[in-house]
Amino acid sequence: MRVSEGSSSVEALVSTIHAVAGNASSGLHEPVFAGNEKAYLNDCIDTGFVSSAGEYVTLFEQELSKFTGAPHAIAVVNGSTALHLALVAIGVKPGDEVIVPALSFVATANAVAHAGATPHFVDVGEETWGLDPVALQNYLATVGHNVGGRLMNSETGRPITAIVPMHTLGHPANMQGIKGVAEEYGLLIVEDAAESLGSMIGDTHTGLFGRVGIFSFNGNKTITTGGGGALVTSDPELASHIRHLSTTARIPHRFEFDHDEIGYNYRMPNVNAALGVAQMEQLPVFLASQLELFERYQNAFADWTEVEVKMGVKGTKSNYWLQALYLSEGLDFDRDKVITNALSQGLPVRPMWKPLNLIGAHATSPSAPTPVAHEVYERVVCLPSSTSLVD
Amino acid sequence: MRVSEGSSSVEALVSTIHAVAGNASSGLHEPVFAGNEKAYLNDCIDTGFVSSAGEYVTLFEQELSKFTGAPHAIAVVNGSTALHLALVAIGVKPGDEVIVPALSFVATANAVAHAGATPHFVDVGEETWGLDPVALQNYLATVGHNVGGRLMNSETGRPITAIVPMHTLGHPANMQGIKGVAEEYGLLIVEDAAESLGSMIGDTHTGLFGRVGIFSFNGNKTITTGGGGALVTSDPELASHIRHLSTTARIPHRFEFDHDEIGYNYRMPNVNAALGVAQMEQLPVFLASQLELFERYQNAFADWTEVEVKMGVKGTKSNYWLQALYLSEGLDFDRDKVITNALSQGLPVRPMWKPLNLIGAHATSPSAPTPVAHEVYERVVCLPSSTSLVD
Repeated sequence: MRVSEGSSSVEALVSTIHAVAGNASSGLHEPVFAGNEKAYLNDCIDTGFVSSAGEYVTLFEQELSKFTGAPHAIAVVNGSTALHLALVAIGVKPGDEVIVPALSFVATANAVAHAGATPHFVDVGEETWGLDPVALQNYLATVGHNVGGRLMNSETGRPITAIVPMHTLGHPANMQGIKGVAEEYGLLIVEDAAESLGSMIGDTHTGLFGRVGIFSFNGNKTITTGGGGALVTSDPELASHIRHLSTTARIPHRFEFDHDEIGYNYRMPNVNAALGVAQMEQLPVFLASQLELFERYQNAFADWTEVEVKMGVKGTKSNYWLQALYLSEGLDFDRDKVITNALSQGLPVRPMWKPLNLIGAHATSPSAPTPVAHEVYERVVCLPSSTSLVD
Repeated sequence: MRVSEGSSSVEALVSTIHAVAGNASSGLHEPVFAGNEKAYLNDCIDTGFVSSAGEYVTLFEQELSKFTGAPHAIAVVNGSTALHLALVAIGVKPGDEVIVPALSFVATANAVAHAGATPHFVDVGEETWGLDPVALQNYLATVGHNVGGRLMNSETGRPITAIVPMHTLGHPANMQGIKGVAEEYGLLIVEDAAESLGSMIGDTHTGLFGRVGIFSFNGNKTITTGGGGALVTSDPELASHIRHLSTTARIPHRFEFDHDEIGYNYRMPNVNAALGVAQMEQLPVFLASQLELFERYQNAFADWTEVEVKMGVKGTKSNYWLQALYLSEGLDFDRDKVITNALSQGLPVRPMWKPLNLIGAHATSPSAPTPVAHEVYERVVCLPSSTSLVD
């Protein structure tokens, strides 16, 4: 079907979504509990272990390590606290400045602020929708200068110390490119892999390209622990420090409570980890369903010349966490028309995250020009993506 | 039995603990799950609601409100984040200074640091083991001076803005006295009621004396949600702001994601709240068991002239969350002897929290003299306190 029929084509487009997501329920990406969730939750009750000590926490971390190949995984209460803890653990200090892609959930920029640092927003790439290495390089060359091996913001005189790339909708950012720029400027990478459990670049899982990576297991993610997150790293000392910081930095002792630095209460409770272990058992099935759903949308829109279902990036394997439709210039209706029409039919759709340099909480932070992030924001409709849509 | 038999009396004392806590398991205060925990957890799985939206969160908040009399309750991921959020919500800013009792879990002081403020430590009272109004008054008069209605630290020139009293082991602090001093100096109160669910002063539940109060539902508390906490307040606008801040400060909109300030991801997941609802149904039984356990310890030590089981404070009702034994001066053995002997017999005991001005993370923060906190720390053994010890 061609899209040149005026206002009727909004309905035709929404009908096409409907044909794939016929039985979509109220959520954009709802969890599926088809495994041992109840058994493991009940086991927590039987054993009395529901809090932050318990074997499911260890098991969940082991399963994450096995699946991602991360030598160390530390489970915490959610992805937002994982990001905050990652920044603190690698040494981001109050007053530092940190590079964040303009297109991400607000948690990415908030974590920088929670560490007392200032986020800078840089544009994303047209193919990846993740931080663009060229835009990054241009921005750093413009705003910073080298002082004794450290990159300083020429305007504020403060150090730019880290970069937080994010894998948008599960599609890997160009980590090789970003790493190259990071190494050139001496910046540390915290990899926000909140959306990309199951996504790979070559043989390496997302989250493993930086000094530390994080995942989210919120209710709308590929797997869920209710609320939850994790940090992954290859560095045993950093892993040990993260674990220490996540449990109030208590010094091990048979009975005394001493703490050698200001820590956090960020450890994942056992009851949430129990859910996580059950979900990890089903992760391969969930990933297959997400890929299958992508293919169904792609087939459904095969005849539409002016819209495109977001595809994976060459050389990477996407988890296809969230399906997305890109509305090209030729259309005579916009994103909001599609969204309001779909919502009126009970179809759970939504736009991309509003670019971080446009939202109230971060509008005054420094930013590079971000035309691609704004274009993606204005042209993309996120589609019903629950794995339950595929049987 | 008199305690004047040299080293043998350590064994006699530990035997007396043993007689009460005969079947104590490995934890100091372990949870009991004798109600609808499994049913409600399974319901979360059946309905698919495990994350931060869900009816158990609302129900849990309603039950907390009903039980405590708090007009507003907001459930969050744990007591530490509840404290942090409380301080941020009442307006504590980076650079502020905040009064904390010297005797508390490290989370109380950490929350102040997480808000970017500096904790000051003040002594506790001999009867309450909570912040002492006289010591507080003396300290504020010494370190501060009034500048245009604000209390400023005379040394640093920074404002002292808040006080965080804590109800030690569930025994209410002297909130009337503390409130009087707070009003005199124009300071806000965040009431750390982490340990005192069920404790009252007159007809008012702890947590309701300050601008905002917090509870903890960690695995070792009177009720548990795995990990969890809550804020309570009488102020509808503050409650609304806390709720907003706890959910990334998102502006309500049908599909856009805009956020008007830097918020947090602190909301309690539904699966944890489900546990909480089941636990609240059993709270009266748990409180009766904690009181009964206190009486058993008190009877067991009735003949010991030189030790005292910590009693409730006049005019208050304690929840007797954690039972504690105070070792008087006349004894010829110390706290560590009792603790190591008891632990060697598998009895879960521990000392009080190490005073905050002695622990590494906060040793450089300003402090009043805190002889009572140090005396309590050196003389108290916390006893096995699981409600399961009483059938």
